[in-house]
Amino acid sequence: MINQHQNLATVVNTTQGSYPVIVGRDVVDDLGLELNNIRLNGRAFLVADEVMFPNPIRRVQEALERGGYATHVLALEIGEVNKNLETVQIVYDWLADLRVERGDIIVAMGGGVTGDLVGFVAATWLRGIAVVHVPTSLAAMVDSSIGGKTGVNIPNGKNLIGAFHQPKLVLQDIGHLKSLPAREMSAGWAEAVKHGLILDANLLDTFERLAPQMKALEGDEPVAAIRRSVAIKAEIVSADEFETGDRRVLLNYGHTIGHAIEKVSGYGTYLHGEAVAIGMMAAAVISERLDMINNELLDRQRRVLESYDLPTSAIGLNIDEIIDATKSDKKSRGGTIRWVLLEGPGQATTRTDVPEEIVREAVQSIRA
Amino acid sequence: MINQHQNLATVVNTTQGSYPVIVGRDVVDDLGLELNNIRLNGRAFLVADEVMFPNPIRRVQEALERGGYATHVLALEIGEVNKNLETVQIVYDWLADLRVERGDIIVAMGGGVTGDLVGFVAATWLRGIAVVHVPTSLAAMVDSSIGGKTGVNIPNGKNLIGAFHQPKLVLQDIGHLKSLPAREMSAGWAEAVKHGLILDANLLDTFERLAPQMKALEGDEPVAAIRRSVAIKAEIVSADEFETGDRRVLLNYGHTIGHAIEKVSGYGTYLHGEAVAIGMMAAAVISERLDMINNELLDRQRRVLESYDLPTSAIGLNIDEIIDATKSDKKSRGGTIRWVLLEGPGQATTRTDVPEEIVREAVQSIRA
Repeated sequence: MINQHQNLATVVNTTQGSYPVIVGRDVVDDLGLELNNIRLNGRAFLVADEVMFPNPIRRVQEALERGGYATHVLALEIGEVNKNLETVQIVYDWLADLRVERGDIIVAMGGGVTGDLVGFVAATWLRGIAVVHVPTSLAAMVDSSIGGKTGVNIPNGKNLIGAFHQPKLVLQDIGHLKSLPAREMSAGWAEAVKHGLILDANLLDTFERLAPQMKALEGDEPVAAIRRSVAIKAEIVSADEFETGDRRVLLNYGHTIGHAIEKVSGYGTYLHGEAVAIGMMAAAVISERLDMINNELLDRQRRVLESYDLPTSAIGLNIDEIIDATKSDKKSRGGTIRWVLLEGPGQATTRTDVPEEIVREAVQSIRA
Repeated sequence: MINQHQNLATVVNTTQGSYPVIVGRDVVDDLGLELNNIRLNGRAFLVADEVMFPNPIRRVQEALERGGYATHVLALEIGEVNKNLETVQIVYDWLADLRVERGDIIVAMGGGVTGDLVGFVAATWLRGIAVVHVPTSLAAMVDSSIGGKTGVNIPNGKNLIGAFHQPKLVLQDIGHLKSLPAREMSAGWAEAVKHGLILDANLLDTFERLAPQMKALEGDEPVAAIRRSVAIKAEIVSADEFETGDRRVLLNYGHTIGHAIEKVSGYGTYLHGEAVAIGMMAAAVISERLDMINNELLDRQRRVLESYDLPTSAIGLNIDEIIDATKSDKKSRGGTIRWVLLEGPGQATTRTDVPEEIVREAVQSIRA
């Protein structure tokens, strides 16, 4: 069904069908043709973060129209502060006004928040219609655009509301990264490096050796590394679509403490990827204290993260607050924390028996 | 996995797993044990339409506790007028306060609106948690509790928002029907009779012969007929879970005109099942005009529906308004109406080539 394709990074296999992830330069111009290839009909409804406005959005619209799709565009400000049901309602109203039907297509263009929110709209409009992701941030490319997780916040918590809704296609144009702020690029590299740390020692080597080229987005290596990082995410999602097994949880390396740092510091102080970088340091310290890895790998992880301008410690953390926050993590089961830890480069595992004093030591170690 | 069970009406097979539908008298007392049987753990969160308050709700709570489930109860008024995102938010807030986790269970107890709304909450809480339906109206038992459709209304339209989220168990206690108003019982029989009309001539015969026993809910026949009606719905859902094929649409027999009548008359004038009964008459007239059935079956359908005290005509319909309303039906594809029509007793099919003048004649024929 899915053709060989020079820009094809991977195919994700799910209970809702298989879908290609295309990663390359200028691939956005082929969006309409790619939708033809996977035999989608209907009209296209492009919902874009207006930070992209107007030229990149216009370019996507034209690509859709070249594929023969009647296209409507809604550009709106989408950020963590309005990633909520009120914004969802605004998109619902737009879809209702245009009488969007089951055979139509929603295209989500923007960063991770856009993909989460627009994906949720697509998951719940007429009980689910086709969605295509065009992620424009590095974090969305290597992480959130793949795997069908959608979500919005309610006052009580982040991403408490959502659905699993797999896209029909994910199209990632490296060109979109050129306008991304440096801090957001670094936050994206954190997730990509994470994939190397937990599952692919070769990818970790590449990120370590080629940091300058990666950061400059020059040559073929960054594209290849993003494709590989995407493929790792896809492999995990294909093996454990609903996070019910032992596989998908590995992607949460650095996230238990990372989420706690975001929560305690007030969301917005750290970008998600920055908090995850610090959280990975804490997780590596725990791994080292439990004799699962040696001190050398701990230092190596720190150097790699720092070479992508990521923080590896945080100022003024309150240890008790951080530990409390880890206990209310969404992934907890019956109050037990499932720690994702390292056993070696490219090798992660889970443990539920981490003594609280070792967690305290680890949190202590990441206080700047 | 699923044991033989004297009250087991059917098993529904879906991509989200298989689940039993249990139909009987006093089966509600076994709810906790049934959840044990399907190996559900976690706490139970019972959301009930407060019209059931307090004794039947207390009885379900006690059954859950006997099964070993720590149980919390939220009883609230749930009706078509508040089947919306505001009510969804109320339930979300309750779940958030109690820190409901992925391994917990939501139990939805009430009529079709309750199942739709609480099912939607379960579909979207933490990207989907287990839901168990305890439908207490006949329409919910034979129709809406089976098949995983959930939905809420937005100002622009009914059920525009929703998700497919299959339950883990559906438990139907005939005893709950004793307090159901007569009009609602009739509306439920409309859907049950529909299953006979479209797919099971024997069931149609049973409903025709035994109307008095059915309506009195006496003896074994009503329980057996409800089980058979449930099994027909389950067969269709198992064959065409997402309504993408040609099978599930058959359940919409009578619904194209039925929905139009509800819309034009103002929701609430007719119960859904009543509007469907009238809509089935219009669909049978179309079938007869297209020489798909003879006049005898048309009359027979009318007599059966009337024996369950269902309307077969509506006062003061505006034909143009009805025809306009059919064109905006949610199931339309590119503006084409897919009519579900009869070819014989227990035999339905779809047609997209019905001339508008025949539709006009049919609508004319159902004006009282």
